[in-house]
Amino acid sequence: MRALALLLGACLALAAHAQDLHVREIGSYHVGGREVTLSGLPTQEISFTAGMAPLKVDPNGQFEAFQMYVQYVRLAEPRGRYPLMLWHGGGLTGVTWETKPDGNPGWQSYFLQQGHDVYVSDAVERGRASWARYPEINPAPPFFRPKQEAWELFRIGPVGSWATKTAFPGTQFPTDAFDQFMKQGVPRFATSDKEIQAAYDAYVQKQCPCVIIVHSQGGNFAFNAALHAPDKVKAIIAIEPSGAPPASTDLSALKGMPHLFIWGDHLNDHPLWPKFQAAVAAYRDSLSKAGVPTDWVVLPERGITGNTHMMMMDRNSDQIAGIVQDWMAQKGLMK
Amino acid sequence: MRALALLLGACLALAAHAQDLHVREIGSYHVGGREVTLSGLPTQEISFTAGMAPLKVDPNGQFEAFQMYVQYVRLAEPRGRYPLMLWHGGGLTGVTWETKPDGNPGWQSYFLQQGHDVYVSDAVERGRASWARYPEINPAPPFFRPKQEAWELFRIGPVGSWATKTAFPGTQFPTDAFDQFMKQGVPRFATSDKEIQAAYDAYVQKQCPCVIIVHSQGGNFAFNAALHAPDKVKAIIAIEPSGAPPASTDLSALKGMPHLFIWGDHLNDHPLWPKFQAAVAAYRDSLSKAGVPTDWVVLPERGITGNTHMMMMDRNSDQIAGIVQDWMAQKGLMK
Repeated sequence: MRALALLLGACLALAAHAQDLHVREIGSYHVGGREVTLSGLPTQEISFTAGMAPLKVDPNGQFEAFQMYVQYVRLAEPRGRYPLMLWHGGGLTGVTWETKPDGNPGWQSYFLQQGHDVYVSDAVERGRASWARYPEINPAPPFFRPKQEAWELFRIGPVGSWATKTAFPGTQFPTDAFDQFMKQGVPRFATSDKEIQAAYDAYVQKQCPCVIIVHSQGGNFAFNAALHAPDKVKAIIAIEPSGAPPASTDLSALKGMPHLFIWGDHLNDHPLWPKFQAAVAAYRDSLSKAGVPTDWVVLPERGITGNTHMMMMDRNSDQIAGIVQDWMAQKGLMK
Repeated sequence: MRALALLLGACLALAAHAQDLHVREIGSYHVGGREVTLSGLPTQEISFTAGMAPLKVDPNGQFEAFQMYVQYVRLAEPRGRYPLMLWHGGGLTGVTWETKPDGNPGWQSYFLQQGHDVYVSDAVERGRASWARYPEINPAPPFFRPKQEAWELFRIGPVGSWATKTAFPGTQFPTDAFDQFMKQGVPRFATSDKEIQAAYDAYVQKQCPCVIIVHSQGGNFAFNAALHAPDKVKAIIAIEPSGAPPASTDLSALKGMPHLFIWGDHLNDHPLWPKFQAAVAAYRDSLSKAGVPTDWVVLPERGITGNTHMMMMDRNSDQIAGIVQDWMAQKGLMK
């Protein structure tokens, strides 16, 4: 019996071992944005290295602002029919999709293993997209998300549980890696939705046809990007989108673009999530009425419990990615 | 004759075509940094999505600050003896090493093709490393580099040439891609050298033994990282380092660690570069006196002209990478 268990363990370890990837190209680019000119600012004296005499610097002149950053891995023989784009949520970057905070492979790796060319981006003002000076270019400073907000809003633990760091029983989030996760956080500007959307639209024009997997705050940008380029976006997989266009939007152009929505556990244990979800449900209903194929997956209804808002980092992230992969295969998005 | 020319062209195209990479793993992590607590800040009302009712948010609490970001590509069968780390310069991120602004492959690709496991990082407060609130955590705001400064300080054109965008005759920088390059720029904090160094030191402890290729402002951090972990750093290749530890530093621990310095063209056409180079030359002299093997390459002295401070993005970037690769092979850093 013990030998059998050992053998089974070895087989599982073997099955879990990822194959080497045959990669055609790894690359990156910035897309979108524009030149901005600043004038009239006083010169400054800055010592750029400790101990170095201060340099007189002129902060005026021309700058690039509002671009976004894209990094891709293209396979030698992709089995996905289209590039797969991974769009992150608010206060975060494309790192959302990379190695998980607990050190295990994330969705970038999963979907590469499944044969997709994978594109990971940082939206305007996040990560390698850079950010623009305020208040001269951006009107307002950004918001820095405290750990408590992430813990509770992302439903790792119930509202009020931060003080004792008590997670929901059976949470799938690796709570030991919570501080490591918080190192991924970036400041969030609330005043540049138009610029963020414009850069996403430019990205779609440059790189699509494509399939988009989008998380949280990214949802609204992806839904709008699809409306702006219905011939370019072949499918949308929205992971707990926090918003959507008005349900009254004319969605008839999206007829051939299937949508998958995935929701985790404990949505009703936070005051905001039922509101976010209701707005997205109304949008889903409008999609359905317009003849757009939609699928709405609430994980606990499938017996998959304990998933947080950051389900791509949860312990069972491969299981959820598998639902996405199966859906893409069913929709004819694999060769 | 024409057929021969066509055949030759086809052969050259074939030779230039990069091989597919056999990749074991693509991943990333944050390293270093610490928890910081803020209190006493007033609550704010922020509308995070256009049209959404403002949310009351509490900016106080715990945050992670001063971590850095690392992304790696590990090959199935690396031929490099050690992981090769690429460290960027000031006001930039790891994107320095990725696809060049003109769309051609950069040094990340080059050294992967040569068989190295390649690690690209974003230093503290740059890119995906994120940045910390000021003045509460960082004492001062960052400096945003205007295009003129980059054009002249990076020696694409002479001082005063920005107004007409007249590059040095024969410049290797693809000036058509200059605006695209500027999209890579990130704000530069001048007050956190200690934290930047601490994160680099933590990175070396986590990931080395290794070889470091470092650019510009990164130079001083790499030289100090080597002094802090002389058993971990196997070689340093410094591309136009803008600073170095004092020449009086005890360098005896570095005896087994070869150093290569590479300098581009037109250093004497900018008032700052001769000063930067003199400080580094003094450090090089001290290394030599301490028995550390050093090589000092001034590209124009080898007949390679027109290279800028951003030589990893210049048209002949592969030629310069080739000098680095040959040097690594000579130093026994390949298997």
